Amino acid sequence: MDSVNISGRRGVPNKRREPANKNKPGRPEGLSNVRDEILDAAEIIFADHGYAGTTLREVAEAAKVTQALINYYFGSKFGLFEQVFLRRGSKISDERLDRLHELKQSGQYDVKNIVLAFLSPTLVLRETKAGRAFIRLQARLHTEPPEVSYKLRNEAYNASTKAYVEAFREVLPHITECEAYWRVTLMVGAYMYAFSDTHRLEELAGGVCNPEDSQEVLEQMSAFVTAGLQAPSINSK
Amino acid sequence: MDSVNISGRRGVPNKRREPANKNKPGRPEGLSNVRDEILDAAEIIFADHGYAGTTLREVAEAAKVTQALINYYFGSKFGLFEQVFLRRGSKISDERLDRLHELKQSGQYDVKNIVLAFLSPTLVLRETKAGRAFIRLQARLHTEPPEVSYKLRNEAYNASTKAYVEAFREVLPHITECEAYWRVTLMVGAYMYAFSDTHRLEELAGGVCNPEDSQEVLEQMSAFVTAGLQAPSINSK
Repeated sequence: MDSVNISGRRGVPNKRREPANKNKPGRPEGLSNVRDEILDAAEIIFADHGYAGTTLREVAEAAKVTQALINYYFGSKFGLFEQVFLRRGSKISDERLDRLHELKQSGQYDVKNIVLAFLSPTLVLRETKAGRAFIRLQARLHTEPPEVSYKLRNEAYNASTKAYVEAFREVLPHITECEAYWRVTLMVGAYMYAFSDTHRLEELAGGVCNPEDSQEVLEQMSAFVTAGLQAPSINSK
Repeated sequence: MDSVNISGRRGVPNKRREPANKNKPGRPEGLSNVRDEILDAAEIIFADHGYAGTTLREVAEAAKVTQALINYYFGSKFGLFEQVFLRRGSKISDERLDRLHELKQSGQYDVKNIVLAFLSPTLVLRETKAGRAFIRLQARLHTEPPEVSYKLRNEAYNASTKAYVEAFREVLPHITECEAYWRVTLMVGAYMYAFSDTHRLEELAGGVCNPEDSQEVLEQMSAFVTAGLQAPSINSK
């Protein structure tokens, strides 16, 4: 049980109730839920206001906890942001690696299927409000100060993105290593823009397309990106 | 001459020195420069901290003016942001339209050249520090609240982007109108990510590519995007 302070917010638990190590299994169930609730609230606020525009006070209010409790779990605003980002980022990354591994066994290892394996884990996130908040947060990560963004982006994604660069090089022997990196980077930019609730397409195309149809999104994106990846090498001109 | 207050900052001009209409030609040169200096300072701060994370106080400090002077010229933080965005956004848009018009006359009206006409005005901006700040600002615009972003994005870009959608439909008769909108949106996402100083490529590819070489950037981007635009229609499967 969490302690509840006079404002009705959940505060730092009493010392005697505190688990020896809050990151180890065996901690009281209630604490685990509060931690997730803080992450859920922070995810939406960071997504809407960015890192600099978010205060721990706002997060505390939204999660109905004290700021002291946020500090207890996450140490600082950056610590909170880090956990918000890595919670889902690592999951996406793991799922991309799993799908790539399965694809390799399946005998259907080609450019289009590798693109689909890369995009699908993020497309699934678009189905929920919280998932959409994370995609927005991720789309704005690269506009955050480098000291906030680089470490997290590398930690969450470098290993899986490099695995995809290697995979594309296997199925696209005509492109150079540099081109594979370029094209994967452009793929990431294209999908992040299209997935991040920008509503650019709706505004521009007004009624001509249906960007809410996940199947259409995946088909349009994968057609464009697959062809882009397959483009002739610029060195072969 | 601007008035200078005791803090050494330039403040709101005395009434008798104020031009009848500050947007008309004939205003004192000094005033025009201060307005531009405020826009220059604001551009970098908005680019680094986002809309919500920027205060007029920071802009006033950086531009060495009073907050009152910023309000005098721009009315509000949104008014300032609007002018920062439209100053360059409208120029990019006009240049894209001019290049498209010239291309149509030139007899070299094809997908690749239309892509180059679209991308080039932004690539030129990468050459200067202020231009790079604008690209970052623009890249984060779509993560700003809709009430800030939609109006400006539409005002600056809708007309020119729609002209490019039409141009691509002329040279790519096999794709539907919806596909043309999709692919132009994906092109925008890809170039904004690649151009916006994310350093993603350097981090990922460490030394394999040279994203500082503008010619390489343009060739890699246009190869990917041109092939993406030319992809078979998803309806033709």
